[in-house]
Amino acid sequence: MDTLTRLEQTIAQRMGASPDTSYVAKLHVRGLPVIARKLGEEAVETVIAALSGSEEDLVGEAADLLFHLMVLLAEKQVPLASIMAELDRREGTSGLVEKASRSE
Amino acid sequence: MDTLTRLEQTIAQRMGASPDTSYVAKLHVRGLPVIARKLGEEAVETVIAALSGSEEDLVGEAADLLFHLMVLLAEKQVPLASIMAELDRREGTSGLVEKASRSE
Amino acid sequence: MDTLTRLEQTIAQRMGASPDTSYVAKLHVRGLPVIARKLGEEAVETVIAALSGSEEDLVGEAADLLFHLMVLLAEKQVPLASIMAELDRREGTSGLVEKASRSE
Amino acid sequence: MDTLTRLEQTIAQRMGASPDTSYVAKLHVRGLPVIARKLGEEAVETVIAALSGSEEDLVGEAADLLFHLMVLLAEKQVPLASIMAELDRREGTSGLVEKASRSE
Repeated sequence: MDTLTRLEQTIAQRMGASPDTSYVAKLHVRGLPVIARKLGEEAVETVIAALSGSEEDLVGEAADLLFHLMVLLAEKQVPLASIMAELDRREGTSGLVEKASRSE
Repeated sequence: MDTLTRLEQTIAQRMGASPDTSYVAKLHVRGLPVIARKLGEEAVETVIAALSGSEEDLVGEAADLLFHLMVLLAEKQVPLASIMAELDRREGTSGLVEKASRSE
Repeated sequence: MDTLTRLEQTIAQRMGASPDTSYVAKLHVRGLPVIARKLGEEAVETVIAALSGSEEDLVGEAADLLFHLMVLLAEKQVPLASIMAELDRREGTSGLVEKASRSE
Repeated sequence: MDTLTRLEQTIAQRMGASPDTSYVAKLHVRGLPVIARKLGEEAVETVIAALSGSEEDLVGEAADLLFHLMVLLAEKQVPLASIMAELDRREGTSGLVEKASRSE
C-alpha cells in the first residue's frame, strides 16, 4: 500500500483516540478552523523553505504540509481518492497535466 | 502506477516544453518565486474552501495544492519519494503517525 | 488626515458603488471568502517579495496587503480604530511593544 | 503621533535590545525567513478569524498581522512612509482607491 493511503487509514483510526496521546485526535478536538490554520501555516513554511532553506528543510515542510492536508481531508470526510481522481481527470481531459488555456 | 508518481513524471517531461503550450513550462520559466507564490495561494484557497466552500470546491483546491506542490518539488529537484520516505520515517519512528510529544 | 483613515473612508464609500466601476464594490459583491482569499494571497506575495524581490516589490505588496486588510475590516464592519486601540493597549500593558513572555 | 508611526519607532529601538527581554529583538536575531514566516502565519490566522471567529478574534489577529508587517518592514529597512506614499499614489492616480481596470 502506498504511503498516503496508509497515512489516510492511520489518521482515520487516530481521529477517535485520546487527545492526550494522539496529535491527530488533539487536532480533531480543536476543530476545523485550527486544522485549516495548521495547513496554511505549513504552506507558508514550505514556501519559505523553498526560497531560503535547505533541501532537508523543504522535505520536512512538504511532509508537514501533506500530513496536515490529509488531516483536513479526514476532518471534512473527503477521501484522498477524490483528490487523486480529480488529478487523473484533469490529465485525461487535456491529454496533458496542464491546460494551455489555464488561467492564472 | 499511482497518480502522484505519474504526475511527477509528466511534470518532469513538461518542464522543458514550450511555455506557450505548457502551464508547467510557463511556471518553470517564470521561476521559483512565482511557483512558491502559487503554492501559497492554493493553500489559502484550500483553507477557505474547507471553511466556507462545498466539498467540490475543496476537492478542486486540494488538487490544485497538490499539483503546485509537485511543480515546486520538481523545480527544486526534490523527488516525491523523499517526502514519502519522510512520512514513512515519522510513522516508523513513533509507531504511530503522530508523536504525543509533538509541539504545535 | 492620515492615509489609512482616509483609505477607510474611501473604501466605505465605494462598498455601495457599481461593481463595474469599483474594485472595492466588486470584492464586496463577491463576498467575504473572496476578500479573505485576496488578503491571504497578498500576504504570500509580501513574504515572497521580502525574501526574493526588490524593495519596490515589497513596497507594492505591502501596500496591497494593507489595502485588502482594510477591505476585509470594512466587510466585517470592524473599524480600523479597533485595531489601533488593540496595538496601543498592548504597548501600554507591557510598557513596551512586546512582551518578553510572548509565546511564538 | 499615530499608532503605527509610534510603533515603527518602538520597533526600531527594540531591534538592538537583548533577545532575552525583547520579542522584536528575538525575531531580528532569528532573521528574515522567520519574520516572513510569522507574517504569513498571522495572515492565515486573520483569514480564519474573519471566516469563523468572533470580532474580538479578528481584531487580535489583524493587530498581530500589522505588528509583524511592521517588524518585516523594519528588518528590510523599508519605512512605513513608503507604503503610505504608495497607497496615496494609487488613490491619486486613479481618483479613487481602486482602478476599474485592476486585474485580479
